[in-house]
This record gives sequence, structure tokens and C-alpha cells, in this order.
Amino acid sequence: MKFCSGCGGPISQIVPKGDDRLRHVCQQCGTIHYQNPKVVAGCIPEWEGRILLCRRAIEPRHGSWTLPAGYMENGETTMACAARETLEEACAKVEIGPLFSFFSIPHINQIYLIYRGKLLEEQYAPGYESLEVSLFGADDIPWDELAFPVIGKTLELYWRDRADNHQRVYSGDILRRDGKPGNPHFRISTQDIKDADSDL
Amino acid sequence: MKFCSGCGGPISQIVPKGDDRLRHVCQQCGTIHYQNPKVVAGCIPEWEGRILLCRRAIEPRHGSWTLPAGYMENGETTMACAARETLEEACAKVEIGPLFSFFSIPHINQIYLIYRGKLLEEQYAPGYESLEVSLFGADDIPWDELAFPVIGKTLELYWRDRADNHQRVYSGDILRRDGKPGNPHFRISTQDIKDADSDL
Repeated sequence: MKFCSGCGGPISQIVPKGDDRLRHVCQQCGTIHYQNPKVVAGCIPEWEGRILLCRRAIEPRHGSWTLPAGYMENGETTMACAARETLEEACAKVEIGPLFSFFSIPHINQIYLIYRGKLLEEQYAPGYESLEVSLFGADDIPWDELAFPVIGKTLELYWRDRADNHQRVYSGDILRRDGKPGNPHFRISTQDIKDADSDL
Repeated sequence: MKFCSGCGGPISQIVPKGDDRLRHVCQQCGTIHYQNPKVVAGCIPEWEGRILLCRRAIEPRHGSWTLPAGYMENGETTMACAARETLEEACAKVEIGPLFSFFSIPHINQIYLIYRGKLLEEQYAPGYESLEVSLFGADDIPWDELAFPVIGKTLELYWRDRADNHQRVYSGDILRRDGKPGNPHFRISTQDIKDADSDL
């Protein structure tokens, strides 16, 4: 960030009075331009015991498999975002179910929310960000070709829950070990679900 | 947004190719400046059956009572944010517990996350954003002086859970009825917790 988006003046990084962090501050009009994490929301679309994955047609991780998920837009809810991304990336209509997992990924300034989802019909196709879309069972998930650690961990927890017939909600952090990529550390809590209600 | 933060060029609102929404796009360098919802994280700090609230020294809702919570910073986790905000606003050290509630508030482009929390000692004081900080039991919560609908609903659900000795996690949306302020509609799901584990 070099210029103020409000007045076009030059930006400096300084610690504003009463603050304790470097911020991008306009030297002309004084506006502080805060930068905050982004929210990614998506779902695990289920159809008759299998789940829908998309093979990425975009970077990063072009060609790898992922759950339908993407950046939340202003003016939408996380559930609406998860349904929209599934429609955009997999041309599939889903009913979004309860929250499944919720992770902070601080080294990329993201939080990542995955819901359970139900495909409303067995219809899907690659959207413009996907090369291929397909249903997978527990035995044929392409574990070595998944796009991101958050996707691998989410699917691992999901299939574990399916295997022991539990429903859980997971929250936690995905951290870099020693600040280095490629070897993430997962710090995860789970809450085991006894019962669920909608529209309180 | 009038100027590009990267090159200082003029911004126009157009729908980029392959997109379906108006975006702020630089007419000089072509950069698309996306705008996304912000995450607010906080906690319900408990001490011997009572909870800690802060009276706001800042707008909006100066003088009203709220839970310690604030905008998540780049590079931090939601739990770290909740603990930091509690320290900043109430000068109180907490251990952050399981996720309690998670709401989308699309008309203000926020998602709002509240954790359960335990005060580590009975020490608290107003931080620079608070006029006053105090412990409240179920019978003396200042219901008519709470800052925001999300705070009122969170505390209502929390005390209901305390009364029937349940632990639940809530997720949902807080929407404006007919697009108007002052009369929010809550669309909330709950997942009833049977058991909880940490550090899977």
C-alpha cells in the first residue's frame, strides 16, 4: 500500500497514538488503513455417502483437489457464501447444514469455515475455476493430491466421524511450525454433538 | 475508494470480466480492490458464576455495556484475538475456552465470534476503550443497556444454557427485517454438546 484510497496522498507505516502496531497511515488526510484477515467459507457436499470435490483450474495449487469454498463477499452470510461457491465451482445446488469446522490460519491471514452440505440432486459440472468435479467415497479420496493442509485435515476429521458415526464440530488453528511452510501444526478442539436444532 | 492504493490511479466501479459484481478497479494499473467482511472475536469471561462486561468509552453506543470483543488483526488467530481484546478492554487475563457462538451480520459486513472464557484471577479494570468494567450475575445483567443485538442474543443464549445446565454451540445469521435497523431477525442453529476435547 503506497497511496491513500481516499485522497491519493502518500502512505507511511507508523504506530498511531494509542495503538501498538504499525499501520498504513495517510500523511495527507490522516486516515488509518487497517488490514484484516479474510473469511473463506465452503462445504462438504454429500450425495448418497460420497462427497463432491473440485479439481482446481486456478492458482495456487492448480490441478489439485479441494472442497468448494471461497472468499466471503460483503453483504452475504457465511452459509450463503458456502452455497454460492459450491454453485460457482461445481455447478451444484446444496442445502447447507450445520457448521463442521472452523480454523484460523494466521500465516495467510485467513479464517476457514466448512459446513456440512447436502447435494439437492446428482447434478454437477466444473465451474470456471474447476477442471473437473467428482464424487468420492472414503476409499478413493485423492489424499496425495489435495490442495491445502486445511482441506486434508477437514476431510480426515470428516471421515473419522463418519466411521464412528459421530457428529462433531471442530475449531482451532493451523500454524506453521518454526514459521516454515510445508509442515503445519494443527491445534484443534472438538465439541461432540448430541443434538442439533435450527431456527431457535 | 477513489484512488488505487498501489499506483495512485483513479478507481472506477465496474464488473470485471468473469465476475458478476461491481468491484473497485484501478483505471491505470487494472488492480481489482476486493472488499470483504471483517471478523470480530471476543469472549464471555467467567468468574465464580458471574461474567465480565465492559461499558463502552467509544462510539458507536458510547456508555452501553458489551462483551470484550474487537476486530481480528492480520497474523493472529480468533482465540488470540479474543484474549487480546479482553486484556485491552478489561485489563483482564482469560483462558479462552470452546467456541460459544458464531454469527454472520451481513448488513454491517461482519462475522462475530464469541468464545467461553475463564478469568484467571479476579483482576480487571477499564482499558482505554472502556468507562467501567464489572462482574454481573444472571439477575443483574443490564439488559436494556447492552450495546448491540448480537450481544443481547449471545447473553440470552448463554444464560439459558446455564439455567438448564447444557453446553451448546450456536451459529447463524443476524439479519435486518425489511432492510431496516432496530428490529433484527435471528436465524440461529444450535448444536448441543455432549463432550469436548482439546488438542486432537
